[in-house]
Amino acid sequence: MTETPRPVVTAFAWVPEFARGLVRDLRVRWALEEIGRPYATELLNARAPRPEEYLARQPFDQVPAFTDGDLQIFETGAILLYLGEQDERLLPPAGQDRWTAIAWLFSALNSVEPIVQRITTYDLRHKDEPWTPGAREAALGLCRQRLARVSDALAGRDWLAGRFSVADIAMVTVLNILRHTDVVAEYPALAAYKARGEARPAYRRALDAQHADFTPEPA
Amino acid sequence: MTETPRPVVTAFAWVPEFARGLVRDLRVRWALEEIGRPYATELLNARAPRPEEYLARQPFDQVPAFTDGDLQIFETGAILLYLGEQDERLLPPAGQDRWTAIAWLFSALNSVEPIVQRITTYDLRHKDEPWTPGAREAALGLCRQRLARVSDALAGRDWLAGRFSVADIAMVTVLNILRHTDVVAEYPALAAYKARGEARPAYRRALDAQHADFTPEPA
Repeated sequence: MTETPRPVVTAFAWVPEFARGLVRDLRVRWALEEIGRPYATELLNARAPRPEEYLARQPFDQVPAFTDGDLQIFETGAILLYLGEQDERLLPPAGQDRWTAIAWLFSALNSVEPIVQRITTYDLRHKDEPWTPGAREAALGLCRQRLARVSDALAGRDWLAGRFSVADIAMVTVLNILRHTDVVAEYPALAAYKARGEARPAYRRALDAQHADFTPEPA
Repeated sequence: MTETPRPVVTAFAWVPEFARGLVRDLRVRWALEEIGRPYATELLNARAPRPEEYLARQPFDQVPAFTDGDLQIFETGAILLYLGEQDERLLPPAGQDRWTAIAWLFSALNSVEPIVQRITTYDLRHKDEPWTPGAREAALGLCRQRLARVSDALAGRDWLAGRFSVADIAMVTVLNILRHTDVVAEYPALAAYKARGEARPAYRRALDAQHADFTPEPA
C-alpha cells in the first residue's frame, strides 16, 4: 500500500514574539488544514542566512518554500493558488467565481499587504527614527483608503468571493499584520470578517502547529 | 459570420507626464499584443472619482478592470494569469514550468513591486517632506536586496521562468517604476533583462496604444 506523499512546507525554527503568527508559512498551513491534507515542515534558522542552495527553492531567501512530490513552488500567493486548484473548498474550479476569488487573492497581496506592511515596518523596525512619524502618517491615509474599500466590498457577504476561498486566507492574514494597532477596528465589517476567519478551526490548528514548531529561544 | 468579441480594458483618458507608461493597463495591453488579440479600451477620468458603479468592477477604483464576454476580472495579476491560461505563449499550460512562471508573477507583485513603489512614492509624491530622505534611505536597502535576488535568479537565462511569460510582463513593468532613478542600472543583468522586455514589439505596440489613447491635457 502506498501513501500519498506529504507536501513539505519550510518554516522558521524560532522567531521573536512580535513575529509569531505572522510568518507566512501560516497561510500555507491554514490552506492545508482546511482540506485536511497532512504535511511535513522543514525548519530553518531565521537568524542566519539559509544555505546557498535554498535560493534555488526560494529566491528571496524567505519562508515558505513548498514541495509537493516533484513540484516546487515559492511565494505564498502561488502556493495558495496551487492548493486551490487541488480542492474546490479552497477555490471554485471555473467561471466568474474562480476569477473573483483569484482577483481578491491578488488584491490581498498587491493592493492591501504592501501598505499594511509599510505601517508595521515603521512601527516595529523604525520606531525610534526621527523620520518615522511623518512617513507613518502619510502611509496611514492610503492604508485607511484601501481598508475602507475592502470593508465596503464585504457588505452583505461573509467572504470576499461569496464563499470561503484562498483569497480569505490571504486577506485575513494580511489584516493581522496590523494586530498591534487599532486600525482594522475602525472598520467594523472588516474586524468582524477578520474574526470570522480566525475563528475557523483550520486557522486555529495552523496557528497551533506553527507555535508547536518553535523551539525555545536559542542562547 | 460572428466575430469573437473583443475584451475591454479600462484605462485613463489622461495622466500627467510622470505617470505615462506606468499606468497598469499597459501590462494587460502588452499581454494582449503578445498573442495578437484585438481589444477595446474604455477611457476613464483619472482626476475625478469614477462613477460609483465602477467599484463593482474594480473595488479599489483603479485601472485596469477587464471584461471578456461575460467575465469580469480586476487586479493586473489576475488578468495576466487569465490571459496566460488562454495562450501558452504567455504561460506554460502545466507542470513545474507553469508554477515557476506563476511564482515569479506573484514575486513581481508581492516581493518586488511594494518596495519599488515605496521608493517612487517618496520621490514623486513626498519629495519635499522633511522625513523623506530618512524614509527613502531605509527603504533603499531592502529594495537593493530584492533587486539583487532577481538579478541573481536571471543568471544564465533570458526570462524569469526560462521562456517569456506573464511573469516577465509583470517584472519588467515593475522595474520601470524606478525609471527616474539609476537603481536598476546597478544590476547589469537586471538592466539588460528590462531592456530585453521593452524591446519586444508587443511592448512597443502596447506603449504606443496607451499613449495614443491619451487626450490633450484638460483645461
